[in-house]
Amino acid sequence: MLRTGLLGAGRIAGVHATAISANPDSTLVAVSDFIPENAQQLAAEYGCTARTTEEIIADDSIDAVLIATSTNTHSELIESATAAGKVVLCEKPVDLSLERAQACLTSVSQTGKPVMIGFNRRFDPNFSTLRLALDAGEIGKAELLSITSFDPAPPPISYIKVSGGLFRDMMIHDFDMANFLMGDAPETISAVGASVVDPDIGAAGDVDTAVVTLSYSDGRIAVIKNSRRAVYGYDQRVEILGSDGLLQAQNMLENTVVKSTATGVTSAKPTYFFLERYMPSYANEWAAFVTAIKSGAPLPVTLKDGVLALAMAEAANLSVAECRPVKLSEVLG
Amino acid sequence: MLRTGLLGAGRIAGVHATAISANPDSTLVAVSDFIPENAQQLAAEYGCTARTTEEIIADDSIDAVLIATSTNTHSELIESATAAGKVVLCEKPVDLSLERAQACLTSVSQTGKPVMIGFNRRFDPNFSTLRLALDAGEIGKAELLSITSFDPAPPPISYIKVSGGLFRDMMIHDFDMANFLMGDAPETISAVGASVVDPDIGAAGDVDTAVVTLSYSDGRIAVIKNSRRAVYGYDQRVEILGSDGLLQAQNMLENTVVKSTATGVTSAKPTYFFLERYMPSYANEWAAFVTAIKSGAPLPVTLKDGVLALAMAEAANLSVAECRPVKLSEVLG
Amino acid sequence: MLRTGLLGAGRIAGVHATAISANPDSTLVAVSDFIPENAQQLAAEYGCTARTTEEIIADDSIDAVLIATSTNTHSELIESATAAGKVVLCEKPVDLSLERAQACLTSVSQTGKPVMIGFNRRFDPNFSTLRLALDAGEIGKAELLSITSFDPAPPPISYIKVSGGLFRDMMIHDFDMANFLMGDAPETISAVGASVVDPDIGAAGDVDTAVVTLSYSDGRIAVIKNSRRAVYGYDQRVEILGSDGLLQAQNMLENTVVKSTATGVTSAKPTYFFLERYMPSYANEWAAFVTAIKSGAPLPVTLKDGVLALAMAEAANLSVAECRPVKLSEVLG
Amino acid sequence: MLRTGLLGAGRIAGVHATAISANPDSTLVAVSDFIPENAQQLAAEYGCTARTTEEIIADDSIDAVLIATSTNTHSELIESATAAGKVVLCEKPVDLSLERAQACLTSVSQTGKPVMIGFNRRFDPNFSTLRLALDAGEIGKAELLSITSFDPAPPPISYIKVSGGLFRDMMIHDFDMANFLMGDAPETISAVGASVVDPDIGAAGDVDTAVVTLSYSDGRIAVIKNSRRAVYGYDQRVEILGSDGLLQAQNMLENTVVKSTATGVTSAKPTYFFLERYMPSYANEWAAFVTAIKSGAPLPVTLKDGVLALAMAEAANLSVAECRPVKLSEVLG
Repeated sequence: MLRTGLLGAGRIAGVHATAISANPDSTLVAVSDFIPENAQQLAAEYGCTARTTEEIIADDSIDAVLIATSTNTHSELIESATAAGKVVLCEKPVDLSLERAQACLTSVSQTGKPVMIGFNRRFDPNFSTLRLALDAGEIGKAELLSITSFDPAPPPISYIKVSGGLFRDMMIHDFDMANFLMGDAPETISAVGASVVDPDIGAAGDVDTAVVTLSYSDGRIAVIKNSRRAVYGYDQRVEILGSDGLLQAQNMLENTVVKSTATGVTSAKPTYFFLERYMPSYANEWAAFVTAIKSGAPLPVTLKDGVLALAMAEAANLSVAECRPVKLSEVLG
Repeated sequence: MLRTGLLGAGRIAGVHATAISANPDSTLVAVSDFIPENAQQLAAEYGCTARTTEEIIADDSIDAVLIATSTNTHSELIESATAAGKVVLCEKPVDLSLERAQACLTSVSQTGKPVMIGFNRRFDPNFSTLRLALDAGEIGKAELLSITSFDPAPPPISYIKVSGGLFRDMMIHDFDMANFLMGDAPETISAVGASVVDPDIGAAGDVDTAVVTLSYSDGRIAVIKNSRRAVYGYDQRVEILGSDGLLQAQNMLENTVVKSTATGVTSAKPTYFFLERYMPSYANEWAAFVTAIKSGAPLPVTLKDGVLALAMAEAANLSVAECRPVKLSEVLG
Repeated sequence: MLRTGLLGAGRIAGVHATAISANPDSTLVAVSDFIPENAQQLAAEYGCTARTTEEIIADDSIDAVLIATSTNTHSELIESATAAGKVVLCEKPVDLSLERAQACLTSVSQTGKPVMIGFNRRFDPNFSTLRLALDAGEIGKAELLSITSFDPAPPPISYIKVSGGLFRDMMIHDFDMANFLMGDAPETISAVGASVVDPDIGAAGDVDTAVVTLSYSDGRIAVIKNSRRAVYGYDQRVEILGSDGLLQAQNMLENTVVKSTATGVTSAKPTYFFLERYMPSYANEWAAFVTAIKSGAPLPVTLKDGVLALAMAEAANLSVAECRPVKLSEVLG
Repeated sequence: MLRTGLLGAGRIAGVHATAISANPDSTLVAVSDFIPENAQQLAAEYGCTARTTEEIIADDSIDAVLIATSTNTHSELIESATAAGKVVLCEKPVDLSLERAQACLTSVSQTGKPVMIGFNRRFDPNFSTLRLALDAGEIGKAELLSITSFDPAPPPISYIKVSGGLFRDMMIHDFDMANFLMGDAPETISAVGASVVDPDIGAAGDVDTAVVTLSYSDGRIAVIKNSRRAVYGYDQRVEILGSDGLLQAQNMLENTVVKSTATGVTSAKPTYFFLERYMPSYANEWAAFVTAIKSGAPLPVTLKDGVLALAMAEAANLSVAECRPVKLSEVLG
């Protein structure tokens, strides 16, 4: 039984609390939050205790820590939790600063404690089924990957300003998905971005629409498309062309009803909210973490994966800024 | 807070236990079962007490009873629970005997206590969305309803023998769905059935494949197709043609992955297991029950609906036996 | 080179003229019509001569006759053309009178000349692909067939009055499709029909909506649904459940464009007009006829098939009139 | 009646011959070819005369010339035909040399004769329906365009060597499609290409897989994916995200049959052969040309469009060679 402390009590922490409680091999023993009342409320809901972050980390009876706090605290919490001997699952991204994330990785490596980064989409039943088919050689050798990832609506400008930008905040999921599916890091990153959805996003120094092309040393290519707005819902699709065929993971729809009238044939939209779409993936993610810890197997996503995705975001930013392809090695140092 | 006692501790009772516990307006206080160990186990899992059925019904602090026992006990338990002042949600069918079910209805009517029959498919998000579109007039006036309802694999012959037959055991769901969507009972029922899936089912006196046509007094027609075997999964589709269009509720698929190769384009199968398909409908069903009880609104499915569906099954049996259309009034007396 | 005379110069005759001309193994040499001007116009368009029906049948240089005249002339023209030594492709139905059609069959049998009835849907690429998959055993043994066949809009009442009724005029195609796919004639026919689309159709003594169940001697079942109105287009679907799976032939759509907006996901409607939908099947039908004649192989659809479908329509009429299942043997005599 | 001479008698010339003959406003009067026997054969098939190219161009009774010869002759034939007063429809590309194509444009501009370039995909019913929906504002303002364009199998290396390379030979269609849908030329072109399908293609100096990103002056972005091999068929899809939704043109399938078995749900593949897919677009293209000429309306695709697409291919080549984004103005001079 993995005795787990949860750091953070916001919306996504609630999702993790459910997963930790429901898993037969883990139990939620404590929760902390910057705002103690939030921790108390969540603790009451899940029948555990509200404590400070420091208390949770210092408690030797707690085996695992799930970090769902704000991004700027991630690196430090990963370091202190691993230093205290805990296994860690931390929400993405590791940090907004690549340098800081790399320092965190160095520091954690010395403890030898396993740290997993919460790229939950790897555990989405559709994407993981696609990956299994790929691994089974069902379309031969992969050649060209396409990821379409559109949010239903842009976040408030106030969020945009502290988000680290589209590449670090949003496309980072897709960078990790590319790494997950291609099984390798790209050599070169070429990004184009613009603010066509909302000029205020541009004014805030960010882009809202972007296309990033990844080139691999063996010639393979991946392309990622992001938009902050797809009014029809949360558009999350992946397709990969291989020597023997094509694999696609399509959108999940709100329901299966189809209406045919004189004006056309109408079906349901993709699910609109990311939690609707990815709820199963959070449960699967936690289960994969627990299983790996229990068995001593390698974690399915590592801190290094988190640093890699962040480096790709950094390269994309540089590519847009300097209007040129950027080698990943330039930013990884 | 609706204090609820659960009668029965089998597989479907477990599903209901989850729904009762998860609903913020109800709490599971006790569970009973023919096999006391089963009740104890379920009670332990949900943090309530295991008691006898008699104790639960006699306990004045219990408001509601959910009956998930074997069919032959339903009528009696409905009667004793309502006589004891409880509101009741009972699994379908009311009884295998139409006469007994009708007696139960008469008896319950005198108590004035609300009894809901568990036709959970009315609460499936797809079918209920279809019904809403129908009610909103999106396809005009309904004219021709088709229900396709195939199980993935036939049950054991031992089950077939006590099931009451395909019409009472399986198609009864579809009879209720027809009543739900057409908003009226049919006038005439014309059934064709055969044993083409497994001769042992025929030898046991049942059919495994059937088509039933329902004629309504205003000329509308419904047709229901049942098979005990669809090797590709649980095939649950509804379509209804109206004066202004067609509404279809299609199957839910296991995932959204599509593979295109030189041999064809392959997508996922329909979900195979009925609980996978209908899990949300059980939760919605319980929520609808609780909401109606709380607000004093009429129940969305009544004991009378349960008797009606059973009468349609009886008419279908008679139609097959005598190879002729049977008026519903013949069996309803 | 099959030298062909075309009897009739209406809309469907024009479709056949194109097929005859385009086929490298046949040539259109003459066309006749009740209204000579029509024949002249069609002849001019296809570079052949306009003649009388009698002249065409009497002309020994003409090998084949395609009969696309009004239904009431079919039997007689089949008889005279075969008596004159010609091979014949005749539009469906053979006749509105089953007795007359049977007499025609007897008469033609004595000449030994091949006569094909124009059930063009057998040659539709979708349905013929489905049949090939069925024959290849891809879904094992067929058990339950469903045919959905809805016209986009009802014909004028004037046409309804002379059409012979929905079963002989419209569902006859589906009866033949059932025979084509099930590879056998049904034993019993049970029909329900109503006039819910347009009361004037009912007043004219016909139904506009019907469900017919066919029972086969080996237990298999087929069900056919017809409606004279589906405002979203020409709805032509077939599905067949077998021991190892399900085969479906779905509708052809006007185009492949899909639009996703805040109000839903909209795709194109089924093709609206029967010629749009079945144009390739007319060309394939003629090609199959020519190939069979050329090679001496049996025709893919025979006059006997035409009589059989008509008998099924007759049985359906009787079933509706007497509100009982009708054995096919009752009407076939 | 547009009296038309056809230059070239190869496979695609045959497609055009059919379109010219079938159109009620045009007639095919002569055909020429580098190999006179080919011209004679095609002429015989379509009932016209075989002549030399020079004779056709010199014949004042011929109004229009359709150029379907090898690419290296296009510019010169366009020039001589327009100089002779003819209207011209020329197959794409205008030339392999952008400089030569620009000279051709200058030369033709002086004659004032209309020249259309055969970007037939603009006339595909799916893409033209998508464009109509876009123009009608059905998804608001366009923001992000994606074009997927995969051939079923690579051509022979001998063809690759003379093709001008993937960008000029294959993606040129997609460049024009982007221009057609975005209604503007891009500012910057950023291309990534590799040889992952067949190393022999790489050895021949070409790429077989490529992703090109187009940036527009107003911030909009387009991305084009090409592969020389998609074993499941000819994959031709377009999607465009706008402020109010998404428009997609999906693949056309070989048939509508769907098979569901224990191993999955299988549907038909996309049509495999480009002529199967685009046959209607060739007929529509010719009809659009004839209609414009007849009415004096501007041509729907101009020689300038042909030069523009070629310039984009040139820029893509430069982008791959120098591994940097290339401004279109760099190559357009």
